[in-house]
Amino acid sequence: MKLYDAEFAPSPRRVRIFMAEKGLTEVEKIAMNLREGDNLSDTFRQKNALQKVPVLELDDGTCISEAAAIYRYLEELVPEPPLLGRDALEKARIEMWDRRLEFAFLYPAFQSFQHSSGIFSDRMTPVAEWGMEARNVAQQFFSILEQQLATSTYVAGEQFSAADITAVVTLDFAKVIKLRADEQYPNILRWHELIKQRPSYGA
Amino acid sequence: MKLYDAEFAPSPRRVRIFMAEKGLTEVEKIAMNLREGDNLSDTFRQKNALQKVPVLELDDGTCISEAAAIYRYLEELVPEPPLLGRDALEKARIEMWDRRLEFAFLYPAFQSFQHSSGIFSDRMTPVAEWGMEARNVAQQFFSILEQQLATSTYVAGEQFSAADITAVVTLDFAKVIKLRADEQYPNILRWHELIKQRPSYGA
Repeated sequence: MKLYDAEFAPSPRRVRIFMAEKGLTEVEKIAMNLREGDNLSDTFRQKNALQKVPVLELDDGTCISEAAAIYRYLEELVPEPPLLGRDALEKARIEMWDRRLEFAFLYPAFQSFQHSSGIFSDRMTPVAEWGMEARNVAQQFFSILEQQLATSTYVAGEQFSAADITAVVTLDFAKVIKLRADEQYPNILRWHELIKQRPSYGA
Repeated sequence: MKLYDAEFAPSPRRVRIFMAEKGLTEVEKIAMNLREGDNLSDTFRQKNALQKVPVLELDDGTCISEAAAIYRYLEELVPEPPLLGRDALEKARIEMWDRRLEFAFLYPAFQSFQHSSGIFSDRMTPVAEWGMEARNVAQQFFSILEQQLATSTYVAGEQFSAADITAVVTLDFAKVIKLRADEQYPNILRWHELIKQRPSYGA
């Protein structure tokens, strides 16, 4: 099993943290340079038609892309500790928060970065005005997250879960578009410190 | 159990089809008028802080939002027929295709509709140029889907799954931005006819 990885991209970091939480520290990681277009080669397109990292390649050559799909596979392979929930309601709650975070926080933050910076203008069409507006969309999520963390130790309840991984990776990534949780959001700051203490944080 | 629903919105339709496939036809559906802002009330914000449909409300008042989270709950409640996969690899493959469809097809199609039409300009800031570009992004997914369906009966393999639901709902929705699969995409058309024959299609 090996992971096609990229150090500074948020989605591969989600998988690295997930693996660290599962104790899967020995998995081979292949560093891809996205700016140089390592992911645009024909060889890599065979692994992921969407030409994105992360990709988990199994020993028989089967490739799984999309961070959440890699989570799902690894949760089945190594059930403990559960990061996607134990019972129906916990599974649903974690999925709910993970999707909220992806659609209302990670995705707009990422869009803002790409459309504002023009970083990948060789492979997409940046719309600067959307880059600015997507930042506003991402920023609106802070109050939702603050409200949740006011009554909940972790994002999806009293247990650390995949939703915390998505949240912390997005929060850290959002610095590139100059979005930071400040003292307006004491519960986000409290939770961020808690997550930073986990050994997986450095993955 | 009841579902907060909206007839023409894609995400609630995903849940209605999922429920129909599971034989959950008796669940009460509460029709929300999104244009009138039924989802912006304080009462509804208590059910979903993001003020979006669908929301599944359980008998004890617990609310689950995000189509994929409702899928997860219902799959646990009614395991047969499995729509999220049987084994680790099938679960991962369905999740992979579902996310690809959401991020590279449904989300940009939806963004294009909202940003081009200005339909919800009382609650968001439309960026017309992004509306046009998001349509291009969605259109690029046709060739990915065509390639997959050239060798696969259904989107994520030889079994009907949640990924087919996301795909057909997006394909039907994409008409509002004048995106249609035409004869360039014979395998999408073949698959679309197959899905239309299922009783759940009308849900």
